Amino acid sequence: MSTSTQNTTDDPSQKHDATDLGIFETLESEVRSYIRNFPILFTKAKDHLMWDADGNEYVDFFSGAGALNYGHNNPDLQKKLVDYILRDGIAHSLDMATDAKKEFLEAFQDIILKPRLLDYKVMFPGPTGTNAVESALKLARKVKGRDSVISFTNAYHGMTLGSLAITGNAFKRTGAGLPLTNSVAMPYANYLNEEMDTLAYMEHFLKDNGSGVDLPAAIILETVQGEGGINVASLAWIRDLEDLCRRWDIMLIVDDVQAGCGRTGTFFSFEEAGITPDIVCISKSISGYGLPMALTLIKPEHDVFGPGEHNGTFRGNNLAFVTATETLKFWQDDSLTKKIRAQEKMIEESLGKIVQACPKLKAEHRGRGFMQGLVCHANGTAKDVCREAFSRGLIMETSGPNSEVAKLFPPITISDAGLKRGLELLEQAAAAVNDNL
Amino acid sequence: MSTSTQNTTDDPSQKHDATDLGIFETLESEVRSYIRNFPILFTKAKDHLMWDADGNEYVDFFSGAGALNYGHNNPDLQKKLVDYILRDGIAHSLDMATDAKKEFLEAFQDIILKPRLLDYKVMFPGPTGTNAVESALKLARKVKGRDSVISFTNAYHGMTLGSLAITGNAFKRTGAGLPLTNSVAMPYANYLNEEMDTLAYMEHFLKDNGSGVDLPAAIILETVQGEGGINVASLAWIRDLEDLCRRWDIMLIVDDVQAGCGRTGTFFSFEEAGITPDIVCISKSISGYGLPMALTLIKPEHDVFGPGEHNGTFRGNNLAFVTATETLKFWQDDSLTKKIRAQEKMIEESLGKIVQACPKLKAEHRGRGFMQGLVCHANGTAKDVCREAFSRGLIMETSGPNSEVAKLFPPITISDAGLKRGLELLEQAAAAVNDNL
Amino acid sequence: MSTSTQNTTDDPSQKHDATDLGIFETLESEVRSYIRNFPILFTKAKDHLMWDADGNEYVDFFSGAGALNYGHNNPDLQKKLVDYILRDGIAHSLDMATDAKKEFLEAFQDIILKPRLLDYKVMFPGPTGTNAVESALKLARKVKGRDSVISFTNAYHGMTLGSLAITGNAFKRTGAGLPLTNSVAMPYANYLNEEMDTLAYMEHFLKDNGSGVDLPAAIILETVQGEGGINVASLAWIRDLEDLCRRWDIMLIVDDVQAGCGRTGTFFSFEEAGITPDIVCISKSISGYGLPMALTLIKPEHDVFGPGEHNGTFRGNNLAFVTATETLKFWQDDSLTKKIRAQEKMIEESLGKIVQACPKLKAEHRGRGFMQGLVCHANGTAKDVCREAFSRGLIMETSGPNSEVAKLFPPITISDAGLKRGLELLEQAAAAVNDNL
Amino acid sequence: MSTSTQNTTDDPSQKHDATDLGIFETLESEVRSYIRNFPILFTKAKDHLMWDADGNEYVDFFSGAGALNYGHNNPDLQKKLVDYILRDGIAHSLDMATDAKKEFLEAFQDIILKPRLLDYKVMFPGPTGTNAVESALKLARKVKGRDSVISFTNAYHGMTLGSLAITGNAFKRTGAGLPLTNSVAMPYANYLNEEMDTLAYMEHFLKDNGSGVDLPAAIILETVQGEGGINVASLAWIRDLEDLCRRWDIMLIVDDVQAGCGRTGTFFSFEEAGITPDIVCISKSISGYGLPMALTLIKPEHDVFGPGEHNGTFRGNNLAFVTATETLKFWQDDSLTKKIRAQEKMIEESLGKIVQACPKLKAEHRGRGFMQGLVCHANGTAKDVCREAFSRGLIMETSGPNSEVAKLFPPITISDAGLKRGLELLEQAAAAVNDNL
Repeated sequence: MSTSTQNTTDDPSQKHDATDLGIFETLESEVRSYIRNFPILFTKAKDHLMWDADGNEYVDFFSGAGALNYGHNNPDLQKKLVDYILRDGIAHSLDMATDAKKEFLEAFQDIILKPRLLDYKVMFPGPTGTNAVESALKLARKVKGRDSVISFTNAYHGMTLGSLAITGNAFKRTGAGLPLTNSVAMPYANYLNEEMDTLAYMEHFLKDNGSGVDLPAAIILETVQGEGGINVASLAWIRDLEDLCRRWDIMLIVDDVQAGCGRTGTFFSFEEAGITPDIVCISKSISGYGLPMALTLIKPEHDVFGPGEHNGTFRGNNLAFVTATETLKFWQDDSLTKKIRAQEKMIEESLGKIVQACPKLKAEHRGRGFMQGLVCHANGTAKDVCREAFSRGLIMETSGPNSEVAKLFPPITISDAGLKRGLELLEQAAAAVNDNL
Repeated sequence: MSTSTQNTTDDPSQKHDATDLGIFETLESEVRSYIRNFPILFTKAKDHLMWDADGNEYVDFFSGAGALNYGHNNPDLQKKLVDYILRDGIAHSLDMATDAKKEFLEAFQDIILKPRLLDYKVMFPGPTGTNAVESALKLARKVKGRDSVISFTNAYHGMTLGSLAITGNAFKRTGAGLPLTNSVAMPYANYLNEEMDTLAYMEHFLKDNGSGVDLPAAIILETVQGEGGINVASLAWIRDLEDLCRRWDIMLIVDDVQAGCGRTGTFFSFEEAGITPDIVCISKSISGYGLPMALTLIKPEHDVFGPGEHNGTFRGNNLAFVTATETLKFWQDDSLTKKIRAQEKMIEESLGKIVQACPKLKAEHRGRGFMQGLVCHANGTAKDVCREAFSRGLIMETSGPNSEVAKLFPPITISDAGLKRGLELLEQAAAAVNDNL
Repeated sequence: MSTSTQNTTDDPSQKHDATDLGIFETLESEVRSYIRNFPILFTKAKDHLMWDADGNEYVDFFSGAGALNYGHNNPDLQKKLVDYILRDGIAHSLDMATDAKKEFLEAFQDIILKPRLLDYKVMFPGPTGTNAVESALKLARKVKGRDSVISFTNAYHGMTLGSLAITGNAFKRTGAGLPLTNSVAMPYANYLNEEMDTLAYMEHFLKDNGSGVDLPAAIILETVQGEGGINVASLAWIRDLEDLCRRWDIMLIVDDVQAGCGRTGTFFSFEEAGITPDIVCISKSISGYGLPMALTLIKPEHDVFGPGEHNGTFRGNNLAFVTATETLKFWQDDSLTKKIRAQEKMIEESLGKIVQACPKLKAEHRGRGFMQGLVCHANGTAKDVCREAFSRGLIMETSGPNSEVAKLFPPITISDAGLKRGLELLEQAAAAVNDNL
Repeated sequence: MSTSTQNTTDDPSQKHDATDLGIFETLESEVRSYIRNFPILFTKAKDHLMWDADGNEYVDFFSGAGALNYGHNNPDLQKKLVDYILRDGIAHSLDMATDAKKEFLEAFQDIILKPRLLDYKVMFPGPTGTNAVESALKLARKVKGRDSVISFTNAYHGMTLGSLAITGNAFKRTGAGLPLTNSVAMPYANYLNEEMDTLAYMEHFLKDNGSGVDLPAAIILETVQGEGGINVASLAWIRDLEDLCRRWDIMLIVDDVQAGCGRTGTFFSFEEAGITPDIVCISKSISGYGLPMALTLIKPEHDVFGPGEHNGTFRGNNLAFVTATETLKFWQDDSLTKKIRAQEKMIEESLGKIVQACPKLKAEHRGRGFMQGLVCHANGTAKDVCREAFSRGLIMETSGPNSEVAKLFPPITISDAGLKRGLELLEQAAAAVNDNL
């Protein structure tokens, strides 16, 4: 079918030059960013591959910053999506009832919640991660009647005002043009060093009536910090945090926008730790096709918003519901988890090799599941590695407060061959940077 | 084609019962709202029509709260969308360059900006109206180095913390769980009565060094307030506001999320007034297909965000770019505007009839273009009218702080026959409510 | 006695030159202000008179900005004060019990509260007006569980962060270096013109669920605005405001720091209006001798602070209690009120004369009791009048957002002769300014 | 003289009963606190002694919470004060020039600033510690153009909104009825234990662009925390903090309201550390007589307030200037410092004895100079010790977030005999509590 419907005038390779980015430079705001790292016109993508307008092929170890965990244009999702569109399924419905939404809810309950013994009400906020986070913050403050929320150093939760107040990055915070208030930054696991018990430290502030840190409505956690530099909290630390929250009657919010939907190997990133957050924020790969969608999962006892107390025009993006439902089939058994566990080792081996082979990068390896990073302590070299990688046909971004981490985010559905190819390109890129130092 | 690809297992009418909403009631959060007004399972839509799972047909005078100005599943948009998907076009790209984005930018420049002599840089914030508003607020505060923003009574700008602070509705404001700060509410046009010059009043506060109202970074305006109750500012008032902003060096932000994209008859709602805002927020119908997308238009001299200073995962929703580009063809000439102007009169006549025929509603008519409302001063009757309408197969919502306005939002592409049918259903519904009082 | 204890080395006229202000110019911060208007070294004062180091005499129509309502060094107060000091009475006691505090409480109850049928608990905040206001704001927010407080245009309530947020003056607000939040400025009586009903306007915002103005914990009122420009609210307006507060369950705070302690003719400025505020802030002239002292009066049902929840080192300034007790004797009968009423007419006549005789000042007269002002609409002329007055030996300041009001604040205990002399100096000064225009 | 002027009707012992506190209980607000710990009517005081209305004598180890460092009614101060009053010196002058203010400025420059090579401009804020702190915060934010201020755990800076936001105590913070914003609490010296380098920890947050802690305008320090529990920062730590502030371009504010004016043995508490803060807040004992007065000392390059940008009615409390000038004579040589150093050892020995003799209190000793404390880790015993002490005629208060520290604040001018007597009473009280456990 894909051939028959393709129409020659729509073939982008006949219309565009891959290096002509003039309209972006003249018309788009200076706020544009990734186009500066990957200055090429892309026109096609499938699974872990992308092509530019000149037909050059790229391996994608970026995955839409975690929004394309199942790769580009997954054929099963694609088929469901096109069928739904062509039969005039409802595209946009706010929070009216549609069959697409109903089927998603049923599948989410049957495949995700029930087998994990999770009892959550499902809220559809606006279709972005920051909207899920904003709804979670509002809800926690309403439930507890407290103003403040504790977030962690190097947290990233979004760019709207409420989420930005709990985001660590100084450059992004400055963008607010306002003091960012009602939040307290506490040290993440291993923030200063391996020895300091950051939770004991935080609890000391809670215990001390004179600490100046008010009892918060909630603590918001990323189990692995993606934007913050692939910082991994141990499962024990995560469990201790949940325990601390219970003892102090603080709500625990897990922002699983980036680490969720399989990125760490299980559907939720917190499954291995065995905790049950009060609220879970989900977005990015929930639709599986890169379509905007977000969920806020709420323990039933905290489901206290009145009708419409939080809303948004695009909370009913049914095309996303259709593909989201289809992705859940990946989670009907543990085969995907097993595959990720196996391939995770391939990634770690490759990164271990680079650390050894490229001493000038002063690199170390960090990560969990398919959230892996090569921390390059030699100043600027992580960016160099990504630049070199791109010139070799591998798409990767950096993260961390000083862009010091080359971040590996391949699709979790990638084949062994695809993964190997990408890792080889990375090894070559790292070696080239190392040799030039 | 629609028939051939339709596959029997996907036929929702064979799988669903229109009145079985159990999963929504048990699993979805209590925050759900429209499903309470329209308690039926919808499965299909085309143009101004929707169908439920039992095959019942509804006329849609709601249009996704303004996100479906071109109707449901417009065939031209549908074709472009499916073609793009099937040729493995990039679905999700953050702010990397794609052909879909390039074509949108070119068309937006050629068809929208240039003919209107508008010189704006285009920013792609997260794909929701509130994200466009948050980016506008951040930018204005950064440009002017001032904290405060003036918004108007009964304004609606979104549910994330920054936008909520400039939204009037008390119920929604309470949801924040926090004091909402750095904003001042000033009276909208004709807020108290027809006589009071609300701009002179506001300017008195600005002039008076002792007023306690700080010089704001920006004033944010909806030219017609949709959620606030179909309140219409006159073109003269809008021009005077722009003039006031110029005299006081205040940025003028037009939130055209709901009133833009043709809803008032022109692409931007402020065209008739002849003003040039410093920032324009666009979302809802910009994709034309109900797909999440938003734009922040910025005068070049204010384009001061650094790369990535505001960002978001779904700013590159390419499926939306594809349909958005296609919608711009409607604006290549003035035929759509003329059609809207003609049909606007049909709506006004119908509403005028109702006002006369249904005295117990104590109704009056308000509106501009295809933003029309029947204000029912008899307590609760606007809701009754909408309920009656739905029982007759017409979908309409209420707006206003006390849900006192029955709001007519038909697709701007609706046929005369479709419009007439909807208006007749409304007239019947109003008569029924009136008779029962 | 005054002679015998006076010691020649302490005679300032032998040690100081009235025009040598060098140490102030080199060592004191640029924030100093009144010394710039009255650039002379003062060394002695009695009743309504002050003397500089060279022995020049000045009539004081300033009265320490309302802190010296009973004149300088009132002999009865002076005697009590010296006796107390010499018998080693407790000078400073925080909120421990002392005889001086006990006697003040008893007298305040017997002479002030009981005869006026006022049932208030007395709180001693830190000994300044802003401290009384801060304690009132905290208490109101605690009692009502609401964040916001409504204040009026051109209000002046103090310079600490909470009070500054409800103060109108833009220059002073800027000093905060922070956004000033949790307050809303509403138009004072006759703010725009005589016709507009500013309370109806405010109530419209409260009634409208979409106004964007949250229900406040309290409304804070100065019955006459001193710093704001001698703006007088009518008794009817004040009563209507109390009524509005009752209907909306809003606490009414009267900031009587400047207008209280007899300045308007009665002990409290709100007595004539017949209202009973929920909280009253008192300071300035409560000690009667210019000694720092403040009171927060609280209806018993709102007395909800826990022990020490608001405190301060100098809440027990016993020297002030001693003189404060003595001042209350002025209020044992209505003789002082009658005297003020009579002299008020003298002031009004004199100002009326100036308005007539000095047309170039474009002056009008405003005021109530001994809070009188000559508003000079000709730009800068109020300052000129005060400068001319000072050169003639009359001390007066300006007020209003643009220093457009020459403010008459003679001691309320001034003799007819003293008042007449001051008024004549003012008339001469005004005439001189008028003639020079 | 004291006898001759004493007048029998003013003799409080003839008028009052020491245990009759009825008027306080019925008329004063529940916010009253010290009267609950010391429920007796005091009528007279001299040096380190107080007497109640029945003539009972008490040793004062409280010193007005540090406002009476030179004891009660110091005869030299008393004489100057009475002379000034009797010669009709100006009592209240706002910030007009008076001889009393001039003499204070000259003496402060000559005796305090010059010999210490300190170059400060002197600002007179309202006459309370919190007013000095509020003015310092405003100034620092204005100078640096940054919003946030770092304060320390268990800091106490005052009760008005700006100061309260940087005060640690949870009970007092709750009183605000508002979120307290624009401040960050960092761990004071030895906050968690002796090992953790709390400045390195804080600097880690400043260095890390992703920490979520914004670069502050200022860091505000008490060199010894009085209210916070007699927590002592080492001189090295204080120097390191100054160094950190210089490296990060952060203003260093020392709140010397309680620790200054000789309490630690030198006039400023930071002299021994050898640092030069950007701003110093002084109040409490600056007048030496318990009269309300405060100073904000500002490095000349930061003296950027405009005239009147911060003001206050009682900034010109001339009676306080008179006694303040007289106190400076104590600092013309180092005799007072030497005396304090000698007596400090007596206190430490006594506390050491108690720690040994009273094991059930689980006590330890903390302090510097005349800020000494007995920390009683056995729950509630510090309060018991103070209660027992009071019953024996010794006035002491507790401090610390859980009132776990018995705080010794004798006058710094106390005689050896007086100090010994107080310490013996404390030893007896501690023993009694220990024996009863």
